[in-house]
Amino acid sequence: MNTAESPLPFTEFDRWCMRRAMSLARRGTGKTSPNPLVGAVIARNGMVLGEGWHRQYRGKHAELEALEAAAAAGHTAEGADLYCTLEPCSFTGPEKHQPPCTTAIIQHRIRRVVIANQDPHPKVSGQGVQTLQAAGIAVETGLLARKGEELNRFFFTFHRLGRPWVHLKIAQSLDGRIAAPGGDGKNRITNEAARKLVHRLRRSFDAVLIGRGTAHIDDPELTVRLERGRNPLRVVLDSRLSIPDSARLLALPDREKTLIFCAAGADPRRIRRLEDRGAQVIPVAGGPENRGGLPLDQVLQHLGARKVLSVLVEGGAAVFSSFLREGLWDRMSVFIAPFILGGGLNAVSGLPIPSMEEALGFQDVEIRRIGNQILFEGAHVYRNR
Amino acid sequence: MNTAESPLPFTEFDRWCMRRAMSLARRGTGKTSPNPLVGAVIARNGMVLGEGWHRQYRGKHAELEALEAAAAAGHTAEGADLYCTLEPCSFTGPEKHQPPCTTAIIQHRIRRVVIANQDPHPKVSGQGVQTLQAAGIAVETGLLARKGEELNRFFFTFHRLGRPWVHLKIAQSLDGRIAAPGGDGKNRITNEAARKLVHRLRRSFDAVLIGRGTAHIDDPELTVRLERGRNPLRVVLDSRLSIPDSARLLALPDREKTLIFCAAGADPRRIRRLEDRGAQVIPVAGGPENRGGLPLDQVLQHLGARKVLSVLVEGGAAVFSSFLREGLWDRMSVFIAPFILGGGLNAVSGLPIPSMEEALGFQDVEIRRIGNQILFEGAHVYRNR
Repeated sequence: MNTAESPLPFTEFDRWCMRRAMSLARRGTGKTSPNPLVGAVIARNGMVLGEGWHRQYRGKHAELEALEAAAAAGHTAEGADLYCTLEPCSFTGPEKHQPPCTTAIIQHRIRRVVIANQDPHPKVSGQGVQTLQAAGIAVETGLLARKGEELNRFFFTFHRLGRPWVHLKIAQSLDGRIAAPGGDGKNRITNEAARKLVHRLRRSFDAVLIGRGTAHIDDPELTVRLERGRNPLRVVLDSRLSIPDSARLLALPDREKTLIFCAAGADPRRIRRLEDRGAQVIPVAGGPENRGGLPLDQVLQHLGARKVLSVLVEGGAAVFSSFLREGLWDRMSVFIAPFILGGGLNAVSGLPIPSMEEALGFQDVEIRRIGNQILFEGAHVYRNR
Repeated sequence: MNTAESPLPFTEFDRWCMRRAMSLARRGTGKTSPNPLVGAVIARNGMVLGEGWHRQYRGKHAELEALEAAAAAGHTAEGADLYCTLEPCSFTGPEKHQPPCTTAIIQHRIRRVVIANQDPHPKVSGQGVQTLQAAGIAVETGLLARKGEELNRFFFTFHRLGRPWVHLKIAQSLDGRIAAPGGDGKNRITNEAARKLVHRLRRSFDAVLIGRGTAHIDDPELTVRLERGRNPLRVVLDSRLSIPDSARLLALPDREKTLIFCAAGADPRRIRRLEDRGAQVIPVAGGPENRGGLPLDQVLQHLGARKVLSVLVEGGAAVFSSFLREGLWDRMSVFIAPFILGGGLNAVSGLPIPSMEEALGFQDVEIRRIGNQILFEGAHVYRNR
């Protein structure tokens, strides 16, 4: 397991350097996918000589950035320690845009390499460590491994489960409703602070996903506006392609980033029409158990094949409940507004939970207050792993 | 309005003394009803000479306690300031168990009386102040008036609205359910810390109220066990008297404190049988609009006539929703457990709220975390006052 913390007696300085490397890695958030977030720090005798991070997909690897930074500052890295959040790569290939880091590390005569997590990529896992050790370099792994797991949760989930990390987000009233009985033109459950938080969340995801109902009723753009950052891919689950031609998602400048999944039997003219408007339409075969909905595992598989490592599901209630029912989720954010609707649409429904004992619980629960709203967050408790 | 803060230039010491008086008053919580909580502090030249509080119903008034405490400590109260959380009383009568405080205050030659709130009781309101002023004593009112209102919210609501203060309490899952689809033998939504908090809440109320369903399914005792304190009156709304003979509420040592409200047409034999088991049964005439439920205004009126100043409504969903629908409530506590049921019984339903704009909002919102649970509290926003 990658999460095992190493029993090695790391020093406080070791920990400090690794935390620093992780904080550098985080600077690449939303820019490196499908690559992981990686940070590196080079230090000798308690002094940092150079640091670096993987800035963006196809950009230089963090280790090389750190080695070059040290050289630029007039330091030789000989005999120094290198702290990497992830196992350095050791291979070349047609899909790969950068030279292997192990070669550079060996050339610069690094004395010791400290690693948080092994790379789950089959071409790297363990190979990087072996290559370095074969060259006489001391390698120690597992420092702040849990924090490293958390840092690259999208990447690790993708390589372990073969599907993107799925984060469910919903905004509900205190009594668990997302719309009044009459139905509203617009979902105004969240306040400004909560909306900013959602935009901050969006920019770190590869894709944002909504259902047909949300596309109709809320007609969202799903772009990052209240914060700086790149727009994620926009995914709509719309089995019969009932999304109106006037939807904002079809009028954005980068409309090629709008993906619409539909049932295999959807109207070909409708598909052409939406493709003419710039969207990508993807028919998937539905199973009989899907009650008119699309098979979520196939949708995720398709997104995974496109190197989408992370999906933020933004509703509505039907889509939210489907992901819960299928167990295809990793983390959940529930915004709870300080008012009661006392009727209307439940945020969650149709889960096959017969009794309180079998209620869907969470791990790593976080509860925050945002103005008069509550933000509840929790992670999936995986049972069969 | 009693809530108006006085514009008088009170000193920091004045404020300190009034806060102290309020903190003394709070010691009587759960013991003074139907009397208010009252505290008193006597001070001269920045020194406290005596303090007192109304310890229990029919006990000495706070002002007298403070005067006696000063005398017992060897102080004369002559020329001193008296801080009272509530206007001192000035009348005698057959219902009254203590002599008028104004007489004692005048006899002890107090120089100045500072009051947080005027007494809403028609026999006192303003009379106390006038009696003191007529005797040449300086009287200043309104110091920390809002805090005083909060302190005696049961008492003030009772005298203003002619009904008890109603506090709604419910425990629900994250998605707003109180029971799984299958239905549970027992409601285990709250954790130990939350249950202790409920017992602490109970002991400060004159009565605890539940509906028929809760009496059946949860079969609660509604007593104060996890904390010290006296048991409140137990009220069950049970239009057809379907509560089982084996209910715990009918087997408690103080079973005369169990009140069961039923419809006017309830079976007389069933009434006698429950009365034989020690409960008090009270038939009330139901209106046609009550969908089988009892008219809550009449229930509250009856409780008010019995000098019940405060009611804690502990569910279930039907009763909770009825109080909300009728607008007969003052404060609400919602315990939110960190799990999802995804089906089953909603905590609130059937409110006539057509759109998000007309959602039921709150004032004085408080949000606390109790372990992994959330406690949301909010107060009624009264519209037509």
